[in-house]
Amino acid sequence: MTWKSIGIFDSGVGGLTVLREIMQTLPQEDTLYFGDTARVPYGTKSPETVIRYAGEIASFLIKRDIKLLVVACNTASAVALPTLKRQLPVPVVGVIEPGARRAVEVTRSGRIGVIGTAGTIRSSAYSRAIKRLKPDAEVLTRACPLFVPLAEEGWIDNQVARLTAHMYLQELKEAGVDTLVLGCTHYPLLKPMIADVMGPDVMLVDSAEETARTVSAILAAKGLLRPSAEKGNHNYYVSDIPAGFVRVGNRFLGGRLGDVFQVSLDDEETIT
Amino acid sequence: MTWKSIGIFDSGVGGLTVLREIMQTLPQEDTLYFGDTARVPYGTKSPETVIRYAGEIASFLIKRDIKLLVVACNTASAVALPTLKRQLPVPVVGVIEPGARRAVEVTRSGRIGVIGTAGTIRSSAYSRAIKRLKPDAEVLTRACPLFVPLAEEGWIDNQVARLTAHMYLQELKEAGVDTLVLGCTHYPLLKPMIADVMGPDVMLVDSAEETARTVSAILAAKGLLRPSAEKGNHNYYVSDIPAGFVRVGNRFLGGRLGDVFQVSLDDEETIT
Repeated sequence: MTWKSIGIFDSGVGGLTVLREIMQTLPQEDTLYFGDTARVPYGTKSPETVIRYAGEIASFLIKRDIKLLVVACNTASAVALPTLKRQLPVPVVGVIEPGARRAVEVTRSGRIGVIGTAGTIRSSAYSRAIKRLKPDAEVLTRACPLFVPLAEEGWIDNQVARLTAHMYLQELKEAGVDTLVLGCTHYPLLKPMIADVMGPDVMLVDSAEETARTVSAILAAKGLLRPSAEKGNHNYYVSDIPAGFVRVGNRFLGGRLGDVFQVSLDDEETIT
Repeated sequence: MTWKSIGIFDSGVGGLTVLREIMQTLPQEDTLYFGDTARVPYGTKSPETVIRYAGEIASFLIKRDIKLLVVACNTASAVALPTLKRQLPVPVVGVIEPGARRAVEVTRSGRIGVIGTAGTIRSSAYSRAIKRLKPDAEVLTRACPLFVPLAEEGWIDNQVARLTAHMYLQELKEAGVDTLVLGCTHYPLLKPMIADVMGPDVMLVDSAEETARTVSAILAAKGLLRPSAEKGNHNYYVSDIPAGFVRVGNRFLGGRLGDVFQVSLDDEETIT
């Protein structure tokens, strides 16, 4: 019997932190990763544009016969998830809902901090997801635009990174949040440093980890998990020259990035 | 008599530093600025893609009857200038050549530093332009990926910015460059801080300033300068929702950004 793959996409390289968690949680699964490097970033684009892009990529992956789609991109999760869920024949998992659910589970005080890119914070997607689950939660948010370039530069624990983290996080720390959601797929790379800055009393919620757990639970519930004796294969597609993706991607995956193929979505039919 | 406008484009907001210098040098001129915010950044895209985008934007501006086109984007200047010059009926000015020329004029030691985005540095466009003018020049380059997000965040002279500048510039300083080219349209915002870090013995070359001078010289030579008693109008077009452009752009232009119109290039015919 042939087992289908798990499809994962992001606007670029950030979703690899989600892939990394999936590889760790479900090492037996094959994965197809799509990084839309020709059109990164999504955060500055209009919802209509992002929905169209997400539809094109989903269509590309569905044709390659995936059994589940992970939208490993906060912007696309915030705006395109309802459309994708309605139109695709497989389960669709975003990165916002799992992180929000975990935050609600672990908070004691109900005072939850959320950090992300300017676009994610402006969209209020996490705040809304958290309030839906726990209407009396108090959600404090902070955009941290420099964290993505710091992670991509590999400056994940130097003086610049620490100073930047202090500037961004001081207010949340002083406000006494007991839980902090890392609401951007790049941030898991900065997690040890962020944990240090926030101190031992603040629980960090890693959306990548929670998303991997959700994927595992859904596949288990549907009887679609591959036997765990197997060893998964991992394929990577990007929409523009792979050089930058390979360089930064290897940093994200600890050097384990395999072959990366450049593809054109123009030749594909879209579903939306 | 109606005077035509100067057309300027960039992948996003960075080219506004070039516009700012043109407004200062030639306050009588009308300008049309195009920021390709739907497709920013260009630095990660293939040359073919950037040439196509540049052609689409040039076509849009030519239809609005410009008398000169400024490619206020390092990536597009590096790859699309020959194509645009061949195909357009007006003079085309990039940002690389003016900066390179100025660097060659002011250096005494012939040891010239160039900083820019990873893409610009990888393209070697400045090194080649400098060596063409002064084959015995020694060009030392350094990519400074965090400078763009720092400028956009408005962190142009805080502790994080200074520490980052020290990390990026230390080597060039120790190597004894006497001239440093700011090879990215965002960097003029960081200029006072960079000047401070490099010290009084290093001459900074601001590509935006040099580009404005070149524009002025070309228009003067062709008798196309508007009488200086006039006061120029400035229009802005962007290819995606203007909110982010307006916020960051006002920081770049000191709050003087006028109305910004969102346009779709899909409806336009292209020239390339």
